[in-house]
Amino acid sequence: MVIVLNSSLAFSEVKKVIVYGGTGALGLESVRYFRAQNWWVASIAHSVNKEASANVKVKMTESFTEQAKQVTVGVGKLLGDEKVDAIYCVAGGQAEGNAKANSLYKYADLMWKENVWTSTICTHLATKYLREGGLLTLSGAKVALGPTAESVSFGMAKASVHQLTQSLSGPNSGLPPRSVALAILPGTLDTPTNRKIMPNADVSSWTPLNHVTQLFFKWTVGESRPPSGSLVELVTANGRTVATPIKSP
Amino acid sequence: MVIVLNSSLAFSEVKKVIVYGGTGALGLESVRYFRAQNWWVASIAHSVNKEASANVKVKMTESFTEQAKQVTVGVGKLLGDEKVDAIYCVAGGQAEGNAKANSLYKYADLMWKENVWTSTICTHLATKYLREGGLLTLSGAKVALGPTAESVSFGMAKASVHQLTQSLSGPNSGLPPRSVALAILPGTLDTPTNRKIMPNADVSSWTPLNHVTQLFFKWTVGESRPPSGSLVELVTANGRTVATPIKSP
Repeated sequence: MVIVLNSSLAFSEVKKVIVYGGTGALGLESVRYFRAQNWWVASIAHSVNKEASANVKVKMTESFTEQAKQVTVGVGKLLGDEKVDAIYCVAGGQAEGNAKANSLYKYADLMWKENVWTSTICTHLATKYLREGGLLTLSGAKVALGPTAESVSFGMAKASVHQLTQSLSGPNSGLPPRSVALAILPGTLDTPTNRKIMPNADVSSWTPLNHVTQLFFKWTVGESRPPSGSLVELVTANGRTVATPIKSP
Repeated sequence: MVIVLNSSLAFSEVKKVIVYGGTGALGLESVRYFRAQNWWVASIAHSVNKEASANVKVKMTESFTEQAKQVTVGVGKLLGDEKVDAIYCVAGGQAEGNAKANSLYKYADLMWKENVWTSTICTHLATKYLREGGLLTLSGAKVALGPTAESVSFGMAKASVHQLTQSLSGPNSGLPPRSVALAILPGTLDTPTNRKIMPNADVSSWTPLNHVTQLFFKWTVGESRPPSGSLVELVTANGRTVATPIKSP
């Protein structure tokens, strides 16, 4: 389903971007931040983000190909021949449990849907709708660079996203010329949910959501872009967040 | 569906093992090889392997949790309270195409099903049915240690299998005590299909299937086991295959 809000503003503004997962914590912040810059922002999510310039609603299904096609057709209807400056995949999810947990199958399924399906769809959308020199960001996780015995399905999904990011580094990736694909690897994001489930945590090392959106902004306008294919670690301390490419292909 | 063949032999033989993907090229060879050792061999696959001691037929479905539960229940009915000495996940598949390919969604879906679903199910089966000190092998791919732009979905799936293997290294993995989980990372296996699609290739560096099954045999009886969690590169030259753990957590 394609819903265009504020359609008179569409395509007349400075930048056009897509936020995949526009109703999650980082998604809400991203839509708000880029709309405040007067950018045209499309949100892709299971529900509508009313602050977005346009929405594509993702249908729930057990079939990846069905969901992927539905979203791709929806974005095609929205954009026509237009291109976007950036696609931010901020959809994602976490789950705990080791390989013996009764929840393994349920969470493995959920982790692929929330992390890998979304990243794969964003990547293909980028090959079709990103402008030359555009930006694609995916969402990785620092912990998945090593073993994650106690959150085994989460680690598998994020490792897949990391390797995908690295595959997008080269000239034969299928992305438009001079575009850049990056994965952000935050530690813990400072979200309402994380505050709730970890009420006694030291939040000084948590990354505020607007630090991430400011980074997205910089990369989108062409500032301080790491090489395409980089996994970019985000480390927050003393109220500042430093972005460091830790693994470039 | 559970089909027991030669059931009078079951549980009276030297070793009991499960071959997941027992009707693929490496699966057929594995079943044949271990039956020739007079081991009890269960094959899990979409069709029946008549040489196996028992079979669990995997139903096709779009739902991972449905398939995973069906197989797990089937194996439970077959084994009851018995444990196995090894589970070999030799199911898997390959696909080409970069992120722009029209086939991306189809192949991403297929690669998860053939490589990641199977590995996840084998891992959970190992937590339930592997004996203490048993062996779990998964199937990785050397190329997926780096970018795989031209076979993007294959690389994502195998990277996930690699990270899963590493997550199984520790005491909190959920596997039985002293058991070992390894991923084999062959270059090209010498299969009929590979001979057919690459008729002019130099096959001297291809790994013969019986080199892999001999390696499985050694590891199963406790010889030359790399540390659990290792990714084990297989390199074939001059008619010999050397197994080298290239990445231990």
